[in-house]
Amino acid sequence: MTTAVATDVSERLRAAKRASRSIGLLDDAAKTALLDGIADALIADTARIVAANRDDLERGDAAGISAGLRDRLLLDDGRIAALASAVRDVARLPDPVGRVLDERELPGGVRLQKVSVPFGVVASIYEARPNVTVDITALALRSGNAVALRGGSAAQSTNGALIASMRKALDRAGVDADGIQTVDDFGRDGARFLMRARGLVDVLVPRGSAQLIETVVTESTVPVIETGAGVVHIVLDESAPLDWARDIVVNAKAQRPSVCNAVETVLVVRSAADRLIPPVSEALVEAGVIIHGDDAVRRLVPEAVEATEDDWATEHMSLDLSMRVVDDLDEALEHIRRYSTMHTEAIVTADDAHAERFLAEVDAAVVMANASTRFTDGGEFGFGAEVGISTQKLHARGPMGLPELTSTKWLARGAGHTRA
Amino acid sequence: MTTAVATDVSERLRAAKRASRSIGLLDDAAKTALLDGIADALIADTARIVAANRDDLERGDAAGISAGLRDRLLLDDGRIAALASAVRDVARLPDPVGRVLDERELPGGVRLQKVSVPFGVVASIYEARPNVTVDITALALRSGNAVALRGGSAAQSTNGALIASMRKALDRAGVDADGIQTVDDFGRDGARFLMRARGLVDVLVPRGSAQLIETVVTESTVPVIETGAGVVHIVLDESAPLDWARDIVVNAKAQRPSVCNAVETVLVVRSAADRLIPPVSEALVEAGVIIHGDDAVRRLVPEAVEATEDDWATEHMSLDLSMRVVDDLDEALEHIRRYSTMHTEAIVTADDAHAERFLAEVDAAVVMANASTRFTDGGEFGFGAEVGISTQKLHARGPMGLPELTSTKWLARGAGHTRA
Repeated sequence: MTTAVATDVSERLRAAKRASRSIGLLDDAAKTALLDGIADALIADTARIVAANRDDLERGDAAGISAGLRDRLLLDDGRIAALASAVRDVARLPDPVGRVLDERELPGGVRLQKVSVPFGVVASIYEARPNVTVDITALALRSGNAVALRGGSAAQSTNGALIASMRKALDRAGVDADGIQTVDDFGRDGARFLMRARGLVDVLVPRGSAQLIETVVTESTVPVIETGAGVVHIVLDESAPLDWARDIVVNAKAQRPSVCNAVETVLVVRSAADRLIPPVSEALVEAGVIIHGDDAVRRLVPEAVEATEDDWATEHMSLDLSMRVVDDLDEALEHIRRYSTMHTEAIVTADDAHAERFLAEVDAAVVMANASTRFTDGGEFGFGAEVGISTQKLHARGPMGLPELTSTKWLARGAGHTRA
Repeated sequence: MTTAVATDVSERLRAAKRASRSIGLLDDAAKTALLDGIADALIADTARIVAANRDDLERGDAAGISAGLRDRLLLDDGRIAALASAVRDVARLPDPVGRVLDERELPGGVRLQKVSVPFGVVASIYEARPNVTVDITALALRSGNAVALRGGSAAQSTNGALIASMRKALDRAGVDADGIQTVDDFGRDGARFLMRARGLVDVLVPRGSAQLIETVVTESTVPVIETGAGVVHIVLDESAPLDWARDIVVNAKAQRPSVCNAVETVLVVRSAADRLIPPVSEALVEAGVIIHGDDAVRRLVPEAVEATEDDWATEHMSLDLSMRVVDDLDEALEHIRRYSTMHTEAIVTADDAHAERFLAEVDAAVVMANASTRFTDGGEFGFGAEVGISTQKLHARGPMGLPELTSTKWLARGAGHTRA
């Protein structure tokens, strides 16, 4: 990257940092009003945003983008109204800043408080989904942070229009508009700089494909919250009731196959294979699922295709499902340790000891007994909004709500106290 | 690094990971007994450890190491007894694992619990201080983790003897001894591998110089907890009572100048300069402090040497202190934003509004009004032990206790629940 680019990006991040100081001091009501102002601005600017989006779509069509990508890129009046409405929802969530998380008085009388504070500048690198631009900005501002964005280049015009609209709303509210920054116009150099902007970016949240996240985690020197892929397993134990097994597996695979909490692999304990695999598979096939089975599965399910070694490590994100017979719970746990991305893992069992062993021993953000893996979701967990689902162990693990966009600091109040 | 080295280090980390699974399931009493066993083993092996330490000292003497380094390297009967006693103290701290941090029932009836769990494998890269070898191992095991260590090469024989002794104690307790691993024998390659061992090292805590920490933060792809340097400031406000100002500044600088919570720079608001600088400086000079002052300070303190631009960014770790006159609180805050390492910052003031403004606006792990910066310490905060003082904003900020060596996971218990 040229020195000129580095200087320009750095100047924007410095401006974001300056803005973060005043945004961090806004009170609850001011932040709610600010987000309502953003929602109003998005509605008022709908025509301009749709026109910018049309530019992106035309470029995309010329480049021959897929129907899926085109749909994720598309904004129309209805989708903009939905975005604005989501911003108003975030505006009404409890303020995550200023919570007193710990309080103690030292023997000499110094009073200590641990309080939640904004991070400062939250950055995000994501793909060509314009809704993320608005979503992350609303969540960051609600938690008192400035934001620095790098979206997919296929959405650059749309993001530009969305950001211009939101910055205008900050301006109108008397808030430093530099609290929303984009580095989209610097292409990959912008992303590269964000990942290495120690001291300017306080936390970086990548959102998108496993490959994008891997790149960000590997190349960043700023702190990253990893929101990861889900190679999600469900174990059907010897004692699993058929109706629970069938309902949970079908729900976890077929309700929304393209999301990270959808199940990818079902492991059936051998002693339950004859009893469970035929009826569960029948329900799956009825729901349009293609089963990739090992030999034992294929003996019971004629429709199953042959599972390859790759299947066990694959997040299909489609109606494909890998299925394997394991000797016992130990072998199921061993398989999960090997292939799990530590997102969500579940067991279906009527045996409480097996359920509790599974809950204790499996190392994942969310471990479930007798519930669908589709419950791993900020909305389902009652957080009101979701920043992403963390698959790392530092800071936040599992669905992240607004509090996960804050850090802490200790406040100490004395009266001339010195240490003995 | 050669493939053979990578394979060997990787095999050790895999063994640590395997061991972490059983260590993570140990209950409170078992972990207490395990640590007591380690303390016993260290005492029993004192002669062997002292002999190994003599090897390191001889090598060090031949290489002409400094008196300070030699002293940090030295272990004798008394120091080993103190180490063992510190292990027994950690053994008696409350178990940080299994705390229920959140509990909720979803509308459909799925019961959710957020519980604290061990990280898995905690790694540390540190300098030639053999006490850190024992210290980190005890803290990691007490919190249910396995540990992978890379100490300074100057202490390699000593660390080898300490680790052999501690591994023997694990063996005796029927705990997988692979829960304590060293990569010391692989030199820098060992450190390099640790920093990139994604999936094998769950968290890496560097301890040592600013340079070591910078290297680890920049080169690591595994999650790091940064324990940082302290360029610590104290602001003497217009209304600062002289006795508070004098007591706090002298305590913060002279009590133990070589530690990270010692003050490095005093900023005096101009309107209080004539009143405060002469008596505070007199007390400092009496305590042996060398003041590096700007022009305004030097006019009032004949003993002061001239402060250079470098002084403001320097963690002296000695009886040197930088001192500067600022126009007002705004200029003090600006100076702190520019030079702070976000460790600890303090103000001395009788003006509550100024104190509260300082507490709200300063971005640091610990922000103080009218107390000595020396209070930033796990022991002083009542944690019973200290893993380090985090200067980052993710996961942990400020003095870290045992709970900061745990992650969390969500447990979900249902009865065949599916998502609507």
